[in-house]
Amino acid sequence: MKIGIIGSGALGLYYGAMLQRSGQEINFLLRRDYQVIGQQGLQVYSVNGDFHLPHVAGYPTVQEIGTVDLVIVGLKTISNHHLIDLVSPLLGAETAILTLQNGLGNEELLAEAFGAERILGGVAFLCSNRGEPGIVHHLGEGKIRLGEFSGGLSERSHDLAAMFQNAGVPCTAISDLRRARWEKLVWNIPFNGLSALLAKDVTDLLDHPPTKRLVRDLMLEVIAGANAQELEEPIDGPGFSQQLISFTENMDHYQPSMMIDRAAGRPLELGAIYTTPLQRAKAAGINMSRVEMLYSQLDFGENLP
Amino acid sequence: MKIGIIGSGALGLYYGAMLQRSGQEINFLLRRDYQVIGQQGLQVYSVNGDFHLPHVAGYPTVQEIGTVDLVIVGLKTISNHHLIDLVSPLLGAETAILTLQNGLGNEELLAEAFGAERILGGVAFLCSNRGEPGIVHHLGEGKIRLGEFSGGLSERSHDLAAMFQNAGVPCTAISDLRRARWEKLVWNIPFNGLSALLAKDVTDLLDHPPTKRLVRDLMLEVIAGANAQELEEPIDGPGFSQQLISFTENMDHYQPSMMIDRAAGRPLELGAIYTTPLQRAKAAGINMSRVEMLYSQLDFGENLP
Repeated sequence: MKIGIIGSGALGLYYGAMLQRSGQEINFLLRRDYQVIGQQGLQVYSVNGDFHLPHVAGYPTVQEIGTVDLVIVGLKTISNHHLIDLVSPLLGAETAILTLQNGLGNEELLAEAFGAERILGGVAFLCSNRGEPGIVHHLGEGKIRLGEFSGGLSERSHDLAAMFQNAGVPCTAISDLRRARWEKLVWNIPFNGLSALLAKDVTDLLDHPPTKRLVRDLMLEVIAGANAQELEEPIDGPGFSQQLISFTENMDHYQPSMMIDRAAGRPLELGAIYTTPLQRAKAAGINMSRVEMLYSQLDFGENLP
Repeated sequence: MKIGIIGSGALGLYYGAMLQRSGQEINFLLRRDYQVIGQQGLQVYSVNGDFHLPHVAGYPTVQEIGTVDLVIVGLKTISNHHLIDLVSPLLGAETAILTLQNGLGNEELLAEAFGAERILGGVAFLCSNRGEPGIVHHLGEGKIRLGEFSGGLSERSHDLAAMFQNAGVPCTAISDLRRARWEKLVWNIPFNGLSALLAKDVTDLLDHPPTKRLVRDLMLEVIAGANAQELEEPIDGPGFSQQLISFTENMDHYQPSMMIDRAAGRPLELGAIYTTPLQRAKAAGINMSRVEMLYSQLDFGENLP
């Protein structure tokens, strides 16, 4: 399958490399890594085994890639104002678009421009980061849950899940993408935000009892917001929040991406992870007051000179 | 009147100096400033005019002060575990105790140890800080509202208010001390906490629209908590919060004490300003969820090594 990868950060590079190694025809839109990857290929350091791809099709513009069968979007949502222009030249009549971006609103943006029937979304649980140009580090996890933007379990979803599985990426096709997106927010909203704001990792956050209670309260608000979104099945508030907290307690001083971005002075993905979920919850009559407070505090740091 | 000042920080030194200048017999319990004040006296730099007190009765222990007519408590509430031992040696049969400390719980602590009939409380609106030993800076404001812990407008309250007025300190006797304490919390809880957490002054906080909304939401929570406390008259939520915000918008980059304390690595008065108000509100059926969140975030910073 001819695939175009838009947004070749840690996520796009890692999944693209895995797919290429399994035989897919991968085309990366590259910026920072364009020259180095052209000369040296792409090196993956992975907890599952390192590998090197000597020949990588990297392009400085999407026009040079041409039309593809599948676009995989890994762009940071803060660059979504470029998204339509970046995807458009890759589209043939049958091209599907799979966005693995964070948060809410990405599928809608693509659907409005290109039609809902093209769009799939996936929720990725991946610990990876970029090293020097030409290098990506896979630190752990990697599972993807993907589904149709329009809902339901399509053959296309199953085929894409099989393609990832075949490449060594655990992947499940799901019928309720919206629920999966919200489930991920139940983790991202408290842990990304609090770690960025307080400059402390998830272990430090949970070691402080009042903050652990706050994490749970934030999770319960997000679950209330989620359950107002006409999910196929509601999320169990106490059970799911406890499950995520226990899961996180087993992480050893993991630093969420937003914590790293804030420390590095990079802009945060506040729109997709906070603003849009807050709007959707509010539209459904749910006031996520603690989430709104956390958003205000994070946005305050963004806008300062 | 023979007066003992317990807690000779910026507040205790300033009010004590004003009272001494007006003819009251002031005895300071001194720690940091003991030697310098003994040698050089006390210098007040004030927006209302500087003055110097060459002879100041400062003592390293309360035992040397002996019994007094009035104890004025200006101790930081984080040192309240010493409060009873510090006040006890100053008490004669008729000694009154006026606490000008921040937040809630100070009158109760004193009343439990020494009897409710001795206790008055005052809410001070004072911008002052300590300089070098022997120096206190009065930057602005200074008004005190004081009243009986047991409620009602006593002759004693009027007399004390007159004493402060006579010393050049604007002072009013009030019948509902509880309401005055909560009114001050309506300002302190958002501005002290957010400025300490975000390391930005009140002007910066209000210049950011989401944070300004958050300030208002926090105020409305505190007002709801206050109005559940059987006040003589309820606080008007929209009106009072708007009034405080407008008042604060006229401040020019004012740094609340908690912001300064956090920046200097000093412990914050979280018990009196957050924990006790949260408990009282909860006991009255009001869940101040944003306040609780802010408390968690502030306490997190306190407990880190």
